[in-house]
Amino acid sequence: MTAGGSEPPRLLIRGLSQIATPAGTAAPLRGAALGEVDVVEDGFILCEGGRITAVGAMSELPALRGEVEELEGTGLSAIPGLVDCHTHACFAGDRVEEFALRAAGASYEELHAAGGGILSTVRATRAAGESGLADALALHRAWMVRSGTTTFEAKSGYGLDRETELAQLRVIREAGGVPTFLGAHAVPPEFSEAGAVAYLEFLIAEVLPEAADLAEAADVFLERGAFDRDEARRYLVACRKAGLELRLHGDQFTESGAVPLALELGARSIDHLESTRSAGIAALAASDVTAVLLPLSALFLGRPMPPARALADSGAVLALATDFNPGSSFSESLPLVCSLACTQLRLAPDEALVACTTNAAHVLGRADRKGRIAPGFDADIVLLGAEDWRYLAYHLGGPVVHTVVQGGEIALAGSA
Amino acid sequence: MTAGGSEPPRLLIRGLSQIATPAGTAAPLRGAALGEVDVVEDGFILCEGGRITAVGAMSELPALRGEVEELEGTGLSAIPGLVDCHTHACFAGDRVEEFALRAAGASYEELHAAGGGILSTVRATRAAGESGLADALALHRAWMVRSGTTTFEAKSGYGLDRETELAQLRVIREAGGVPTFLGAHAVPPEFSEAGAVAYLEFLIAEVLPEAADLAEAADVFLERGAFDRDEARRYLVACRKAGLELRLHGDQFTESGAVPLALELGARSIDHLESTRSAGIAALAASDVTAVLLPLSALFLGRPMPPARALADSGAVLALATDFNPGSSFSESLPLVCSLACTQLRLAPDEALVACTTNAAHVLGRADRKGRIAPGFDADIVLLGAEDWRYLAYHLGGPVVHTVVQGGEIALAGSA
Repeated sequence: MTAGGSEPPRLLIRGLSQIATPAGTAAPLRGAALGEVDVVEDGFILCEGGRITAVGAMSELPALRGEVEELEGTGLSAIPGLVDCHTHACFAGDRVEEFALRAAGASYEELHAAGGGILSTVRATRAAGESGLADALALHRAWMVRSGTTTFEAKSGYGLDRETELAQLRVIREAGGVPTFLGAHAVPPEFSEAGAVAYLEFLIAEVLPEAADLAEAADVFLERGAFDRDEARRYLVACRKAGLELRLHGDQFTESGAVPLALELGARSIDHLESTRSAGIAALAASDVTAVLLPLSALFLGRPMPPARALADSGAVLALATDFNPGSSFSESLPLVCSLACTQLRLAPDEALVACTTNAAHVLGRADRKGRIAPGFDADIVLLGAEDWRYLAYHLGGPVVHTVVQGGEIALAGSA
Repeated sequence: MTAGGSEPPRLLIRGLSQIATPAGTAAPLRGAALGEVDVVEDGFILCEGGRITAVGAMSELPALRGEVEELEGTGLSAIPGLVDCHTHACFAGDRVEEFALRAAGASYEELHAAGGGILSTVRATRAAGESGLADALALHRAWMVRSGTTTFEAKSGYGLDRETELAQLRVIREAGGVPTFLGAHAVPPEFSEAGAVAYLEFLIAEVLPEAADLAEAADVFLERGAFDRDEARRYLVACRKAGLELRLHGDQFTESGAVPLALELGARSIDHLESTRSAGIAALAASDVTAVLLPLSALFLGRPMPPARALADSGAVLALATDFNPGSSFSESLPLVCSLACTQLRLAPDEALVACTTNAAHVLGRADRKGRIAPGFDADIVLLGAEDWRYLAYHLGGPVVHTVVQGGEIALAGSA
């Protein structure tokens, strides 16, 4: 069957204590279905040609002829490869100095106003050049794999000029990521006099045409001090016309009309929502826009958590992501996101798993191939170093990720 | 110089981007000194016979004759081996089921009342036997080393009978830990009718005489539903008479008189303090009792954080620890504690470092040998996989620990 060449060989993972996967095959899961995880005990997973071809109990394992690579799963459990649907992982430099200042009392907005914040990463990213950026993303990507992330989205938005925005999108694509065009992340210094609208005109005229060929979606930072609702609409409408799916950073610090705009434009997602109140929750629950929650960012900034339980109970579509970036969430760890989901967001482990697998894949338009351990899905699998898969959330900050399989091949070998 | 046999060879760590260590040689550091960290750039550390013999800038590195093992530190930074002064790491089983129930809405006290909580770990620990317990602690110890912990305290308190309490203390000693006798952790089922006082009489008469030879300190869980102030006093006074240092779990859920009792008895520390108010803070500030803060436990239980900033500003002696245990803090990660210190407790990275190195060593009576990178101190060193040592706190949930040196030997090799 595995005729050879560059084709990955068949891989059999056997003797797994548990295999946990979102129930059924539909996506997204919402309402009562958000917490539906199927668990097979003492199970096997068979992968072939980069896909999963069979999953079941060891007692049902068929006889396999021909060459099969075997991975012993005794003492381990399996979950789908994690899907990080909101990162800013393509950046150069760091913001450790700003982190230390904030710990000593300065606020995020104060640091931003003082020329720190996003613009300090813009300077470092512009200076890195495309190969420097590729090196930085490769390092960040390696961290993500160690944390069990096999599919990641990453945004531009640290270039804010034509050359660097496009370089970011190319670098993300080449690293296997899902690129999102976030030109409207902040107004760069070159446009500080001309203003936000002039900058958006520039983006739409000069960057979007090429960005639309590289990216899958567009995103905007709708927030006091960034872009307002009218500006966001103008940018997003142009991006939609250019063929991009739409996403929004909304309600992070203030409730600024992002939810109504997301619904008006039929966006795929609205992300953050730390400040969203009951009307926004009800509106999202009645829509197909996914609420992407980023608890690491709330923790990192010492801010209130988003209203996850209310969103879940009202039936909104929920996803969880890291928001990995150097300023407000220097963390690539979806296991830690799951721990925060269970301890801070009042979500059950099953709900957390669904939210960072199939529902996150849904945000990226990949729920037919990613985020489940089931025949026909990509062979992206995380083996946890514990018999109970819920250690993913339970073992806070611990070495839970043991082995990572990506496209049927071992991307990280037995490390826990 | 390194004549051989079992003597560790000389070890030179060279080219380190930064070496960060609590300033001076006095312990504990408090008040303004809490944030005093000395940093050497482009430095070396020389270890000999298990101790640090020289630290300085590479430009001052003397010529070394004879056999020297070299470790290249380029791109890395060094901090003292971390000291975890409050853990319950000697336990069998887990409480993942309870974790999932709590995520779904049950409170810690409800789970405890329902026969979950501490007593479920007591059942598993009694059943494990001494060799089973040793195996469990070995696993937990390996996790701790991966997180950079080179000195750890661990408590009994999951036996609550003579045999298992003493077995816990032996297992902790044999694993190189600092044992604390926590017989007064909960009232075991055998004494549920006779009551708390009868149980304490039993502990004092039947367990303490031998426990006092195995442990260095005694500890008590002073809390509504556990032991009250008079019961705690009776137990602690007997333990002090038997030669043990004193510690208390206090003010975790309710302010129950633990601070005045700690001061009255001259305890080494009072640990938790999530519920301590201004009078307690002022009393601690005027004392030599160390306030041991456990932010992972507050996070894990979704409870308020302890008043760290007020304690620090008032001049109290602060230490940070994990509280690693299966029920209320299933985490062995002091790097994560440092991240929470900077994002939730409003401590600067320098204050966090001092609090989990020299100040934690002070709680364990080892500040003359542990918690600093300076000549004469034990060669316990953590190399971080970043040029700036503050990644320890900044890289939230990331693979910050690269290499761990313990007693001059490599306990964990280049992993980040």
